[in-house]
Amino acid sequence: MSDNIFSKIPEINHSEVMKDVDDQMFDNIVHNRRSVRAYTDEKVPSFVVEKVLDWALLAPNSSNLQCWEFYWVKHPVKKARLIEALFHQPAAKTAQELIVAVAKLDNWKNHSKQMLENFDAQTEKVPTSVRDYYQKLVPVVYNQGPFGIFGPFKRIFMAIAGLFRPIPREPKSIADMRVWAHKSTALACQNIMMGFSAYGYDSCPMEGYDSSRVKQILELGSESEICMVISAGKRAKNGVYGPRIRFPKNQFVKIL
Amino acid sequence: MSDNIFSKIPEINHSEVMKDVDDQMFDNIVHNRRSVRAYTDEKVPSFVVEKVLDWALLAPNSSNLQCWEFYWVKHPVKKARLIEALFHQPAAKTAQELIVAVAKLDNWKNHSKQMLENFDAQTEKVPTSVRDYYQKLVPVVYNQGPFGIFGPFKRIFMAIAGLFRPIPREPKSIADMRVWAHKSTALACQNIMMGFSAYGYDSCPMEGYDSSRVKQILELGSESEICMVISAGKRAKNGVYGPRIRFPKNQFVKIL
Repeated sequence: MSDNIFSKIPEINHSEVMKDVDDQMFDNIVHNRRSVRAYTDEKVPSFVVEKVLDWALLAPNSSNLQCWEFYWVKHPVKKARLIEALFHQPAAKTAQELIVAVAKLDNWKNHSKQMLENFDAQTEKVPTSVRDYYQKLVPVVYNQGPFGIFGPFKRIFMAIAGLFRPIPREPKSIADMRVWAHKSTALACQNIMMGFSAYGYDSCPMEGYDSSRVKQILELGSESEICMVISAGKRAKNGVYGPRIRFPKNQFVKIL
Repeated sequence: MSDNIFSKIPEINHSEVMKDVDDQMFDNIVHNRRSVRAYTDEKVPSFVVEKVLDWALLAPNSSNLQCWEFYWVKHPVKKARLIEALFHQPAAKTAQELIVAVAKLDNWKNHSKQMLENFDAQTEKVPTSVRDYYQKLVPVVYNQGPFGIFGPFKRIFMAIAGLFRPIPREPKSIADMRVWAHKSTALACQNIMMGFSAYGYDSCPMEGYDSSRVKQILELGSESEICMVISAGKRAKNGVYGPRIRFPKNQFVKIL
């Protein structure tokens, strides 16, 4: 773990034009977004779905390894099978559009190489520490070995090294890699749902599905996991099941 | 698994006033948000942090069980220890504010009861199927037993039952519960980062930390996991390490 990578600010000369923002408009988008479980027949224009997917891909994600995929299921037969795998829940069966968000446990291998290729292609200079991160650290840190066999060794090393100084503890198992991939995918999912709200459409995130069947429909292997299914449309009169319930803020927000 | 809960739309009579939204403004918020790794000395007003935390708590989350906590670390000594546990990375040590997002693996037990109490207190009628969900299903579905001992039995049951009809497969292990809790917490984290962007502030999500030490600082037990640490402030001249890199959309978005 080089000091360079984590503790020094590299020489950078990159600036971006900031666009106008509006916190009140964001507040409205947050407030309009409710989980909608029954939709009307009104279609969602394709450009809206395309745009929310663009926004999904602009979400922050772990080491920019983009460990996600999004399946927009339009084909009537596949859609019917997907609705069945979602137990025919109203949020799915009345939906105009269904997007399956998939967490990828394995694409970090190719994506770390693709990051290096992108660095090579760009005109702005990439700090050595950043390049080293993808070339040297990523291949070691994320690799758990076949069936996670490196895990116990990582655990022992961390337990000992961690006595003396702060060290990264994760990912040290396949379970950690699952958490890792789902976390970034969920960040993107929130952009999808907020994106629909920004266009005046509704959405519902669903975790109640037969993941084995959803994976069959999408023809996914063992390194892909269903993160959630997001439905979209316009809310029906009975689409929101009741007033929003949140427990008091002081149960969740702690100031230290 | 009652048909009522998943496949029927209950009788509902609840409507909400929709506020004005603007997709272009949302697009600006998405585009301005870059992971910022060096901040200026400009303070972030407290009301901004309070507001982004409010937005976090309004994120969608699994079964509304609100399996999250957010620690706003302001105390100078604790903040210094947190920065150390983050390896003194510039995104942490130059930050004006640090928020630790915590995924909770155990609070679903109390929160399912608290949902029922909220139903009792509200004037609008709650459908029986919704009440049953929290009273009967949640205690069974999320309970993995001590050390996850119920897991293998759940697995066997699901493998057999799943041959004949779609059935929910998760959560069937402590690993699944971890994925479950981190996923909802990440949805809230994205509201935090987008919220800072909506106010014209910058942020950086960090996963590079010594989670054992962060948990010590926050005095958390084994049922709490660090999801990510989010720093905030105004970007310094060298705060963004380069142009945004995203691989081509067709690597990630699949239309079926």
